[in-house]
Amino acid sequence: MKIGLVQFRPIFGDVESNIKTIEKMVATVEADLLVLPELATTGYTFTSREELYRLAEPFDTSESLNRLHTLASHRSCALVVGFAEKSGENIFNSAALLKPDGSKELYRKIHLFGSEKKFFQPGESPFEVYEYNGVKIGIIICFDWIFPESVRVLALKGAQVICQPANLVLQWCQKAMVIRSIENRVFTIKYCPILLKGKTPKLFPVNTGASSL
Amino acid sequence: MKIGLVQFRPIFGDVESNIKTIEKMVATVEADLLVLPELATTGYTFTSREELYRLAEPFDTSESLNRLHTLASHRSCALVVGFAEKSGENIFNSAALLKPDGSKELYRKIHLFGSEKKFFQPGESPFEVYEYNGVKIGIIICFDWIFPESVRVLALKGAQVICQPANLVLQWCQKAMVIRSIENRVFTIKYCPILLKGKTPKLFPVNTGASSL
Repeated sequence: MKIGLVQFRPIFGDVESNIKTIEKMVATVEADLLVLPELATTGYTFTSREELYRLAEPFDTSESLNRLHTLASHRSCALVVGFAEKSGENIFNSAALLKPDGSKELYRKIHLFGSEKKFFQPGESPFEVYEYNGVKIGIIICFDWIFPESVRVLALKGAQVICQPANLVLQWCQKAMVIRSIENRVFTIKYCPILLKGKTPKLFPVNTGASSL
Repeated sequence: MKIGLVQFRPIFGDVESNIKTIEKMVATVEADLLVLPELATTGYTFTSREELYRLAEPFDTSESLNRLHTLASHRSCALVVGFAEKSGENIFNSAALLKPDGSKELYRKIHLFGSEKKFFQPGESPFEVYEYNGVKIGIIICFDWIFPESVRVLALKGAQVICQPANLVLQWCQKAMVIRSIENRVFTIKYCPILLKGKTPKLFPVNTGASSL
């Protein structure tokens, strides 16, 4: 399985522009799975709950996700994408796994960071593992990294590849995720704006076989 | 509290020489707590259980520990030292906390590494926290680092400083222990032969106040 990440700077509040950027960036990439940033469709820098509620979309009927899902099907490439999810009166910092076969999965960020707590509800569903092309995929979002239990739970549930949409603020995540990989013997795919700059999708071919100590 | 580590290359099987080296190195160091290597009194490279059994000492009556305990009292400096512990027919890869007031504590390595499993019994007692000069001290030994639960348990029990006698073989521990510190908000003191070389004790002053994210 060939896995990569799509790294770009979402324009805050301009969903149409962000979707177009993703469509353009993914159009020429040959991969089986691509990981996009946290809150990739809306951007991250919310200043009020009202602003967030206006931009958030329901998982089932989101026009943004529908467009990206079409893209996933056309490219035969699953996408893991962060988005602002509206669910009744609640708003979650979520990630969708959009598979080329038309099915999709949802993860709601459990460990909110800093001012996210003012705007989002924390996810209350457990970490889950999703099968895709014979590989077991787990999802965490950004600050979930600091809690070793996040990836541990996914690994204990059989995850082989951890996808981590992120908008990193702290400086330690890149190093921590290497340790998460080692201590759980899993592969981790993360958005890392500190290490990688520019608008070119950065691809890491991934061997999904387990390594051994 | 001023904490440091004593880094040297124990001569395998020459307990007398190793004790003298420690006595000499600690003689001029001003610290409240010093961490010595794993299996500091005997060296690490055992080739048979018989060889190990001959060199191992009981915790309560160990002449080596008694001499180091005297040193701890004279220097008003607690020592955390790795030693081969004989207990009946069992042998443990252990660490002693030798306090200047004459009291001492024992930790038996839980996660044995590689060929250690041929010679040692794994420790079956839980990770414990020890009070010293108003600071809560936890001990892990070397390969315990790869299991995030080791430091997590100590932190949940209130540990502020984690002492880690080690004889590192793998290359990731130094980086992992930084992450253990961050994810648990504790200080970690480890023997790190890859990063630090030479025979001079290397001291790190440690602020025992908790940091905040």
